[in-house]
Amino acid sequence: IRLSLPAVCVIWQTAMIILFGIFIRYNEESDIRWAEHKKLKNITSDIENDFYFRYPSFQDVHVMIFVGFGFLMTFLKRYSFGGVGFSFLLASFGLQWALLMQGWFHHLVDGKILIGVENLINADFCVAGCLIAYGALLGKVSPVQLMVLTLFGVTLFAVEEYIILNLIHARDAGGSMVIHTFGAYYGLSISWMLYRPNLEQSSSLQRSVYHSDVFAMIGTLYLWMFWPSFNSAIADHGDGQHRAAINTYLCLAATVLTTFAISSLFQKHGKLDMVHIQNSTLAGGVAVGTAAEFMLMPYGALIVGFCCGVVSTLGYIYLTPFLEKYLKIQDTCGIHNLHAMPGVIGGIVGAISAAAASESVYGHEGLVNMFKLVPAVQGGHQAGGLCVALCFGIGGGIIVGAILRLPIWGDPADDNCFDDEAYWEVPEEEESSLQILQ
Amino acid sequence: IRLSLPAVCVIWQTAMIILFGIFIRYNEESDIRWAEHKKLKNITSDIENDFYFRYPSFQDVHVMIFVGFGFLMTFLKRYSFGGVGFSFLLASFGLQWALLMQGWFHHLVDGKILIGVENLINADFCVAGCLIAYGALLGKVSPVQLMVLTLFGVTLFAVEEYIILNLIHARDAGGSMVIHTFGAYYGLSISWMLYRPNLEQSSSLQRSVYHSDVFAMIGTLYLWMFWPSFNSAIADHGDGQHRAAINTYLCLAATVLTTFAISSLFQKHGKLDMVHIQNSTLAGGVAVGTAAEFMLMPYGALIVGFCCGVVSTLGYIYLTPFLEKYLKIQDTCGIHNLHAMPGVIGGIVGAISAAAASESVYGHEGLVNMFKLVPAVQGGHQAGGLCVALCFGIGGGIIVGAILRLPIWGDPADDNCFDDEAYWEVPEEEESSLQILQ
Amino acid sequence: IRLSLPAVCVIWQTAMIILFGIFIRYNEESDIRWAEHKKLKNITSDIENDFYFRYPSFQDVHVMIFVGFGFLMTFLKRYSFGGVGFSFLLASFGLQWALLMQGWFHHLVDGKILIGVENLINADFCVAGCLIAYGALLGKVSPVQLMVLTLFGVTLFAVEEYIILNLIHARDAGGSMVIHTFGAYYGLSISWMLYRPNLEQSSSLQRSVYHSDVFAMIGTLYLWMFWPSFNSAIADHGDGQHRAAINTYLCLAATVLTTFAISSLFQKHGKLDMVHIQNSTLAGGVAVGTAAEFMLMPYGALIVGFCCGVVSTLGYIYLTPFLEKYLKIQDTCGIHNLHAMPGVIGGIVGAISAAAASESVYGHEGLVNMFKLVPAVQGGHQAGGLCVALCFGIGGGIIVGAILRLPIWGDPADDNCFDDEAYWEVPEEEESSLQILQ
Repeated sequence: IRLSLPAVCVIWQTAMIILFGIFIRYNEESDIRWAEHKKLKNITSDIENDFYFRYPSFQDVHVMIFVGFGFLMTFLKRYSFGGVGFSFLLASFGLQWALLMQGWFHHLVDGKILIGVENLINADFCVAGCLIAYGALLGKVSPVQLMVLTLFGVTLFAVEEYIILNLIHARDAGGSMVIHTFGAYYGLSISWMLYRPNLEQSSSLQRSVYHSDVFAMIGTLYLWMFWPSFNSAIADHGDGQHRAAINTYLCLAATVLTTFAISSLFQKHGKLDMVHIQNSTLAGGVAVGTAAEFMLMPYGALIVGFCCGVVSTLGYIYLTPFLEKYLKIQDTCGIHNLHAMPGVIGGIVGAISAAAASESVYGHEGLVNMFKLVPAVQGGHQAGGLCVALCFGIGGGIIVGAILRLPIWGDPADDNCFDDEAYWEVPEEEESSLQILQ
Repeated sequence: IRLSLPAVCVIWQTAMIILFGIFIRYNEESDIRWAEHKKLKNITSDIENDFYFRYPSFQDVHVMIFVGFGFLMTFLKRYSFGGVGFSFLLASFGLQWALLMQGWFHHLVDGKILIGVENLINADFCVAGCLIAYGALLGKVSPVQLMVLTLFGVTLFAVEEYIILNLIHARDAGGSMVIHTFGAYYGLSISWMLYRPNLEQSSSLQRSVYHSDVFAMIGTLYLWMFWPSFNSAIADHGDGQHRAAINTYLCLAATVLTTFAISSLFQKHGKLDMVHIQNSTLAGGVAVGTAAEFMLMPYGALIVGFCCGVVSTLGYIYLTPFLEKYLKIQDTCGIHNLHAMPGVIGGIVGAISAAAASESVYGHEGLVNMFKLVPAVQGGHQAGGLCVALCFGIGGGIIVGAILRLPIWGDPADDNCFDDEAYWEVPEEEESSLQILQ
Repeated sequence: IRLSLPAVCVIWQTAMIILFGIFIRYNEESDIRWAEHKKLKNITSDIENDFYFRYPSFQDVHVMIFVGFGFLMTFLKRYSFGGVGFSFLLASFGLQWALLMQGWFHHLVDGKILIGVENLINADFCVAGCLIAYGALLGKVSPVQLMVLTLFGVTLFAVEEYIILNLIHARDAGGSMVIHTFGAYYGLSISWMLYRPNLEQSSSLQRSVYHSDVFAMIGTLYLWMFWPSFNSAIADHGDGQHRAAINTYLCLAATVLTTFAISSLFQKHGKLDMVHIQNSTLAGGVAVGTAAEFMLMPYGALIVGFCCGVVSTLGYIYLTPFLEKYLKIQDTCGIHNLHAMPGVIGGIVGAISAAAASESVYGHEGLVNMFKLVPAVQGGHQAGGLCVALCFGIGGGIIVGAILRLPIWGDPADDNCFDDEAYWEVPEEEESSLQILQ
């Protein structure tokens, strides 16, 4: 067991090097032959390189993956190292494997995968699905289990994405279905398979302290602020990216207001709960993902945000305890409320917006550019995409959960969950001085 | 009282949805008809979309609003939730209302407000004014009061901005006058109206602890680093944005050195005070706002920064206690030193630079593009703009302060200020272990 | 002594203003005459202004300098103020002096230094060298010593950079040699000169606490995420920047996996050590700096990252104690493992990649654009550049270290190191309650 993490890391990284050596090359915009390509295509300026269209968005997405998700998971009093550290590990492995998997499906030219900045964004997106799944399992799994979760998660993601985007021809720029719905149900299914009936033995550690809640707000705010970049990162150049950013910006603003409202309304004495503020304020970004590039209209974005703030916060208050008690799903971060429900809402909003698209709003050219199919059919295909995401999430999660139940992965005992001591050298002093008091 | 926050949030958000439905649409660069617009205007590339000129700056500004202001206000030992949480709420509401208010004044076309990325930046700017005002009131007001402050603050801001920029034809790219002077005097006037003679009952909580000071440095640094983007975000394409960024970068660097100097010089034993480092290092960014896009020259920017570091730090040492004792203005974050004085300095620097603009420096074309009026007159109008900002700030603050004195807003008692317990579910453990000791 | 910090800050800042007044002006892209320049050069769009090519990267680099380096140095339990605060001071001074020094060597036109966004990036790079050196000295020097270190460090840097880039014609876009090798050996040599035999008197403070390790992870992640911008910020427009970003992204991902592997493998019970995760995960970014813009190939980047994670983590485990015990080099942050060794590796990788460059990979045009010399010769010159960086680092460090040994700088006593009390007003309460226990 002691050797399993080093072994997995070294062997898998070696495999990555070999596979990258065989398959991955620069594409025409990142290769030194860009100068020739420019001449060939009559491109007059280096600024037309896709790098300048997408790199700022890429960096924002990158921050969301590592600081956003990482710090959002530091809220537990004694699992901040695990939250930010293991998501760092998981994401660093996942993005390499994602470049390969997504490359094989989408970018294979003469047996080589040609990569540019858009591939990096897509790899980060793919990793986001696995990080969402980690949210349900936070504090209850070993790093090796997370590596396995990521290996299979990325694989499933790439297949599901290929089916939804390329076979069904659904559109999903911000990944409400492809990323969030899939990732959340993948994680929840695994959590269901790994159900721990005696988890209350660790309940004293499954809570926050004052400053860990402030750390988590770093994650929340970076996710919230950069979500417009997330939803616009791979949208079409020009108005596509522009509109996706505006819709997401508005939707998230509305979510904040209803989250505060519901949090205050349902708590005793009208007090606000940090868990809601940290998580539910983000639900709008998830739900507007699919439709962000559509002509959703600013008020449409606000309506989506309004509803998601309500639904997500109520989910934390009523649904999470219900899921744990009756469905045996232990969901540490409440990803069902932050990703699963809003993701499904996002898929539905996308299907409705697509089905309702009209030539009077989009113009003839716009309609053709946006959708491969006529609107009514497109709406149906969007709904079909949502179902595929759900099936892959639940089905894949059950299978991977079964694998992760094998007693070989070094997961912590029930009374040892949510505790960094299990996997980290933890500095002792402050802790000990507090323990004297207890 | 318990229901007032949820009610305000839900009702106002509903109103936003209705007003957005009536008024707000995409502009020609974010609408799907961009493709047609491109042809019409002979634009050859999507990269000419304003999105690519301004989106990176927008995201930096967005970080300043939410992480910058939010974390700068986490310095109090027991009000970090309120600092970062309420500024999150306030800003999310304010930006929606700002889009409407600013849109009615500046972007109304055939009864519709057409929005693009520049509107998002301006909305964030407008919210900044209210966040500055919050700085004076931190820990002493209820969230409902903050919502009211924001509603009126944004309204006043939009009127004042219209007068200064469109009627008086002053220029103010970084908002020294429009944002900082207005916002600071607005907040100080409200604080004066809400004077609490017995605030010393909460004095044990009106201080920082070691790690809350480190949290606040996150806010400081993000404001400091991204201020070049703040001052250049809506400057003219090309050299305007370029020069504004350079001037701000230099000015802020100089401020840091004099802040450290004065802080060390006036403390006993030459020790540095974190309050100064957290706040006064930013004063240069405020003061160079108006003139950042002008031909201020690099050494001019350094001089402004030099002076502001001195003035602002001395303000913390001598003026803040004086204001509290003699003028009955309780200024939690010291916004008088960080925004009010530097804002006024910025207005004056702007007026002088404009009045001194000469054809030998600007060239004929440059002078015409930069200023609507001849330099001497422009200088006078700049000074006029400063006066308008001051009047709106003080006048508006007194009126809104009078409204906020009504005993219906649920503000905390004097012995309950600076304490998150009043509005938040606070995790108990660590606290209790420390309380045993006390 | 009490007056030395204020005096140094004020006098040096005044000197900067005078020198900027004499020497520094806007370049043709940040000057208001850009409109004329555009016409003259037949530039059709403002988007061709270098600002839009480099500003997003610049802001990322800026974050690395202030938040990245600053927070990485907050890991000590009682030196977080000094870590983030003094690096703020040092960098703010250093960047002004760097603009002058680098300007004199590279941008002098008719006796004036013309600056634009690329100069800001280079100034930040130059400061990075001094911040690296600070890493070795963290907690053991006074702020005045840091100012002196920066004054000489920037000066040496500019000379060394001129020799390496302009005389030897080596390429070093990400600064493996120019920044990291130089900065690290500069700091280590100074630390060797300032050896404190009785430093163990402060050993109770030379460690982290739980939340200071989380603060340090903020620094780690921002350095890690934005390193692709660091290595691509001044690479050639188009494919150069694009490729440098991709190579760095991949290299760093590989480093994370091997760092986790080695950290777990060599600790008792297979536990992970936060020191390794905070630092060694970044080694790949250092090592890929020189070769990032070359046709290193994605698998090449992974190999470099793989090796650096191993070397750097082993360095923390074995080499740092060895250096301290036998070579009398006390290296607080372990910069030998994070910057020195990876920097040398980076120089060697750069030399090999340059020497191995072939027309079949680069094309004729590509080869000419990338290298001034034929590949074999270029490889030799790259190696020569590495030697220059080493000599300047070690030689300069010894001289500056000798100056800093003079007993006039107010450095802390051996039993007072790693303690913010020496230079900062530290909030008392929490501390005191803990001290009762001890």
